[in-house]
Amino acid sequence: MKGEIIAIGNELVSGRIQDTNTFFLAKELARYGFEVRSIKIIPDQEHLIIESLIEASKRSAFAIVTGGLGPTEDDLTAKAASKAFNLPLKRDPVSWEILKAYVEEHHLEMRENVAKMADLPEGAVKLDTKTPRAGFFLEFNKCIFYFLPGIPSETKDLFRKVVLNDLLERIKDRPFVLTKVVKIFGLRESEIENRISDLIPKFEGLSVGYLPCFPEHHLHVTVKGTVRHLIKTVLEDFISKVTERLGEFIYGYDDDTLESVVGHLLREKNLTLSVAESCTGGLIGHRITNVSGSSDYFKLGVVVYSNKAKSQVLNVGEDMLARYGAVSELVARAMGESVKRLGKTDYGIATTGIAGPTGGTPEKPVGTVYICVSSPGGTHVEHHLFKGNRLEIKTMTSQVALDSLRRSLLKMGKT
Amino acid sequence: MKGEIIAIGNELVSGRIQDTNTFFLAKELARYGFEVRSIKIIPDQEHLIIESLIEASKRSAFAIVTGGLGPTEDDLTAKAASKAFNLPLKRDPVSWEILKAYVEEHHLEMRENVAKMADLPEGAVKLDTKTPRAGFFLEFNKCIFYFLPGIPSETKDLFRKVVLNDLLERIKDRPFVLTKVVKIFGLRESEIENRISDLIPKFEGLSVGYLPCFPEHHLHVTVKGTVRHLIKTVLEDFISKVTERLGEFIYGYDDDTLESVVGHLLREKNLTLSVAESCTGGLIGHRITNVSGSSDYFKLGVVVYSNKAKSQVLNVGEDMLARYGAVSELVARAMGESVKRLGKTDYGIATTGIAGPTGGTPEKPVGTVYICVSSPGGTHVEHHLFKGNRLEIKTMTSQVALDSLRRSLLKMGKT
Repeated sequence: MKGEIIAIGNELVSGRIQDTNTFFLAKELARYGFEVRSIKIIPDQEHLIIESLIEASKRSAFAIVTGGLGPTEDDLTAKAASKAFNLPLKRDPVSWEILKAYVEEHHLEMRENVAKMADLPEGAVKLDTKTPRAGFFLEFNKCIFYFLPGIPSETKDLFRKVVLNDLLERIKDRPFVLTKVVKIFGLRESEIENRISDLIPKFEGLSVGYLPCFPEHHLHVTVKGTVRHLIKTVLEDFISKVTERLGEFIYGYDDDTLESVVGHLLREKNLTLSVAESCTGGLIGHRITNVSGSSDYFKLGVVVYSNKAKSQVLNVGEDMLARYGAVSELVARAMGESVKRLGKTDYGIATTGIAGPTGGTPEKPVGTVYICVSSPGGTHVEHHLFKGNRLEIKTMTSQVALDSLRRSLLKMGKT
Repeated sequence: MKGEIIAIGNELVSGRIQDTNTFFLAKELARYGFEVRSIKIIPDQEHLIIESLIEASKRSAFAIVTGGLGPTEDDLTAKAASKAFNLPLKRDPVSWEILKAYVEEHHLEMRENVAKMADLPEGAVKLDTKTPRAGFFLEFNKCIFYFLPGIPSETKDLFRKVVLNDLLERIKDRPFVLTKVVKIFGLRESEIENRISDLIPKFEGLSVGYLPCFPEHHLHVTVKGTVRHLIKTVLEDFISKVTERLGEFIYGYDDDTLESVVGHLLREKNLTLSVAESCTGGLIGHRITNVSGSSDYFKLGVVVYSNKAKSQVLNVGEDMLARYGAVSELVARAMGESVKRLGKTDYGIATTGIAGPTGGTPEKPVGTVYICVSSPGGTHVEHHLFKGNRLEIKTMTSQVALDSLRRSLLKMGKT
């Protein structure tokens, strides 16, 4: 009962963009015990689409096809499916109503190229009753086809909301699979491996993938088996052993993000936060506010990119700036303590550094960063020398700042 | 003279890691005028490798195959090639010497699994005389095969040092290629197409790909031809026509980002900027400071996430906040004008809105956003209702704010 994934798009085979849909789909399918026999990426050429669809119908139990459902001339998927399976294109009434409503709502014209989005191969069933582009389902030669749009957010959405459940209903012959992602910051891949690799062969049906997600490392743990409660126990035992061995280097699991974990700790302990950013330029505030409800604990951010702003907004002494430079331990400390006072919060964090590629000196090369965490119990400043390009140095700085905050919060007593 | 790319690896079809070799190879091949008919990713299973190699030999001028050349049990590529082409595996003397030297140098044992790395299909030629894993070349049925290791750094290295030159020597029949990316914001894909699609057939050898990169659209323009200066003229003429038709909806080309274009305009006109963010939480500051040298024009950012911060840091009246709410035209205006004063800059921009998923009301649903651009010539506030999840609403808000700033800057006289 193997399946395949087919991604269609000139931009994907010409190296214009890296396809991410096939990776997302492969990951999701594996999570639910579906085996993928191949992933294929082809250009928007009718004969290649037809060839791939026919091949899939001959050898696979299911195929997920992405791309080519839009209004432009090179969107050929529905037409190619019609030819491959010898099913005439017909105007689908459901799709047509959705399309008409969309066109009216957005004050657009119903041009021929737009109208064709409602033309589906006979027997096809639209997968969604809301969006005009959304894909369709079709069964041919005992192979189940799902045609999805190529825009990654739409692919993900439709797969999670419709396709996955449908597939689970239709294909029952598959092992139970349980997965858990362990999210780690502060250890190299080889250090993680040294700490845990001896454990893996001791757990039946368990496999582990190491995934670097700069600047973090994610451990993808998978257990397969025929008895659900047994694989659950295997997974839980393994995770508890790994958690023991890696300790506070693990910041979370599965959908946790460092900023959501920090937010959770602040909320749980009823504490508030202000942030003063220089070299991170707003990235820490952006990350913190990616968490819904963050206004409950995040009160104030300032991006003091110039020395003037540092002295005027945060009262960092001009003499201190002149004597030690903006990138210094004392300035980081002054920024962190000052923003904490200004925001009237329990915590203040601050960053100052040289993100590069210019601005480095022999004493303070590119990547020099000072990070301040000012807590109710005192102020602590760390000095780092990060490697990488501008965005990598900004990202690493925001990561270390949030992780230091997390470690400080873990030590705080609950209120 | 089309080719194909085949990547082999269980970890690639199970979604443990995203394959990056195929993307790298597709990009490089396109750059040199080689056309790729398909990319295929398959697991380490002998029959699937054999099937794919035979298919390639029947229909392609060349195939680049990555992965499966190492010492472990699931490294099956050489064996599968031997079976697919009916060429017996023979110990290759060049490979054997390299392997022996490597094993001695690293004080390893010559185990059978290591020794097999020197066994190649009859007629195969090793591509490199240094590394033990490095791949081999083989011609079968007029199709040229390059077998490369799967580790991305090794793939890249070997492709650039050996494969590319060899391919350029062997396949002379290919066009010159020139490309340009046009970056657009504020038009739907169908609107872009309506404005320019009639132009495309008028330019010989020219093709256009529409690439949505939320929230932007990128137009990838490619011209192929046999005379270099002619395709250069074709590309330039087309770009100038497209620029005429799309006007200010085009914010830049190729490596430009909206924030780098805004930065360039500020620098050129010798103007400075401050930003007050509520719903974007620091994202605008982060984007602006992704541009090296942005400290020359970006002076101050404030993230006023609470009403208290809005009134204390930006002097937004508490009565105004109480009467109209933080998400209102008047508050946006007060924020933008206030941060401009506070930062002593020429421009001040401000955002306030409801990023969701909670916090919406019937009068101000999730996605309600006010964006203020306060310029030396006056203050302008826009009201928007954006759709999407929290991050999409934040991203769209930052995009519209930067784009409004860009359009305002375009109107300003130079100093």
